[in-house]
Amino acid sequence: MAKKSQHKSALSEKEGVLDTKSTNAKAIAKLKAKRKSKRNTQDLINALLNGDITALSQAITIVESKNPNHNSQANQIIKACLPHANKSVRIGITGVPGVGKSTFIEAFGNYLTTQEKKVAVLAVDPSSTLTKGSILGDKTRMESLVNNPNAYIRPSASGDSLGGVARKTRETIILCEAAGFNTILIETVGVGQSETAVHSMVDFFLLLKLAGAGDELQGIKRGIIEMADAIAINKADGDNLKAAKLAKVEFNRALHLYPPKASTWQPKVTLCSGLKNEGIDNIWSVINDYILLTTENSFFNHKRKEQNKFWLLQTIEEQLKSDFFNHPTIKIELQKQLDLIEANKTTPFVAAEYLLGLK
Amino acid sequence: MAKKSQHKSALSEKEGVLDTKSTNAKAIAKLKAKRKSKRNTQDLINALLNGDITALSQAITIVESKNPNHNSQANQIIKACLPHANKSVRIGITGVPGVGKSTFIEAFGNYLTTQEKKVAVLAVDPSSTLTKGSILGDKTRMESLVNNPNAYIRPSASGDSLGGVARKTRETIILCEAAGFNTILIETVGVGQSETAVHSMVDFFLLLKLAGAGDELQGIKRGIIEMADAIAINKADGDNLKAAKLAKVEFNRALHLYPPKASTWQPKVTLCSGLKNEGIDNIWSVINDYILLTTENSFFNHKRKEQNKFWLLQTIEEQLKSDFFNHPTIKIELQKQLDLIEANKTTPFVAAEYLLGLK
Repeated sequence: MAKKSQHKSALSEKEGVLDTKSTNAKAIAKLKAKRKSKRNTQDLINALLNGDITALSQAITIVESKNPNHNSQANQIIKACLPHANKSVRIGITGVPGVGKSTFIEAFGNYLTTQEKKVAVLAVDPSSTLTKGSILGDKTRMESLVNNPNAYIRPSASGDSLGGVARKTRETIILCEAAGFNTILIETVGVGQSETAVHSMVDFFLLLKLAGAGDELQGIKRGIIEMADAIAINKADGDNLKAAKLAKVEFNRALHLYPPKASTWQPKVTLCSGLKNEGIDNIWSVINDYILLTTENSFFNHKRKEQNKFWLLQTIEEQLKSDFFNHPTIKIELQKQLDLIEANKTTPFVAAEYLLGLK
Repeated sequence: MAKKSQHKSALSEKEGVLDTKSTNAKAIAKLKAKRKSKRNTQDLINALLNGDITALSQAITIVESKNPNHNSQANQIIKACLPHANKSVRIGITGVPGVGKSTFIEAFGNYLTTQEKKVAVLAVDPSSTLTKGSILGDKTRMESLVNNPNAYIRPSASGDSLGGVARKTRETIILCEAAGFNTILIETVGVGQSETAVHSMVDFFLLLKLAGAGDELQGIKRGIIEMADAIAINKADGDNLKAAKLAKVEFNRALHLYPPKASTWQPKVTLCSGLKNEGIDNIWSVINDYILLTTENSFFNHKRKEQNKFWLLQTIEEQLKSDFFNHPTIKIELQKQLDLIEANKTTPFVAAEYLLGLK
């Protein structure tokens, strides 16, 4: 069409004027690129929905992108994936460095594919921006899983905040599910706030531990034990087996001291060895028991609904705070009010009212 | 002046018209009342600053009032008190029901008055609105302290939220300090979030415990032990003494597992008996050691500054959320978005953006 109008135009310049041609050629290229991009997004979505791993990776990259120009494309992809998402089991896996998470996930992931499952492995690790990806950054640690055609491994999204990383991971889950992955493993380190974030996006939370080390030594916070639906004592092999069995008794006793869970599920303690590929099937059987129980008593869907509500409210609250505290006037006046408080000339509450009145 | 204008007015009605006279009398009374109220507030402040307990109680009632008409009077009082506040030691005291808090506080408060201290006892108990004041509601439990001329006991402010109760308590502290009370004891129950609130308004946090009962049995959360600057094992008398001594060793060992505090203070464990009035002086000596250390290393003032900042930010965040979520449009649209999320038609993040765009 652009070409036609060029020929018909009364304003057309003499033939041979290079500039005009060049301008039009640029416009045409732009238009073509735009059409191509639109067609590409739809193609990408179609390929993703057909289980194409390359398309899935490209789509995740677009969704993770911080470039605002990718926003509408990202939203288009997510919207198209949503009706095909949510049909999966989402499993959170945590444990401190050294507990053998990578080896365990490789064994567990490979086992799941023998059970006709398609497995996606994601990670939430806000620290990875600093450490250049401590989790899953090095895919070679999971070589056999990487080469498994029914498994997909994606390193942690980078982000400025845990909230940002969590959002990207939540959206990546939707894309993986739409691409046909029905078992999502989400890995995180057992030392920070990322557990709470992961706990808020999974159906089942698995804590990996080692025998013979106290909670303090393992750097695991008590709150994380409370979150666990199962504790797997890893490296329960060889000389370690006896200590692992003792630890199992201890953890079982400790777990009974916690108040009962809303799911009515009683957390289980199991032994396993990622390295020797032992006890892996048992953990999957525990997870299946959990799914059976919580599907019957409707807790499974109730929890997902509550998680959605949590992320909605959480996102709003973070944005409200960020809008307020990043406002240039507030930035200046906040410091002034802090100084006045320190000089005993106002209280935090009166200062808060004043600042809230400014915006 | 009102009378004069009445005589001069061309519009004046016949003498003897009762209505006019009555109107003017009312206006005068109102004017007088307003002047009286203003004078009264200043009188009240002066009396409070002179250490008048009745004035202090009246002022606290005005500051605690939920009647918006009392706001400006409350702010006037707080503003006048601020330059005279902050010169005190604020001590938080927590422990589950049954640990002997009232008996301990009575013994401790009375002891402090023998050390030339003026002691104010406040309480933070958000549950008191439900239980009609479980803490300090019944002053008869502290009969001798009530009658001590150098002590002042004020029951917990009632409030709809912990934030509301905390604010009132913070302001009450300022009033008590301005009235000359230089040792503020703030009591709370050791079972809920109120500990965090109290911890954020005191210089020193004392946890009362009993010998022979585990944390779980005592209903004390681990986080509260982490907050404690000292643990006093109460009821360490008679047959209980042996168990209390053992508990002291245990707690000392447990406390060493926690990371060192920013204050560089190593939390202490002491034995005491509120009932037998034993070990009370030792607790005061521990607190004095703490004050000495934290004054020397500047942590004392640093902590108060951080607390002020915490309350400023906390109040702003709560207000931002409350303004947003109580907006009539948001209330309706929030539910609609939650329904769309449940129907897999949007994500929590897209829904959050939509809702934020509405206000």
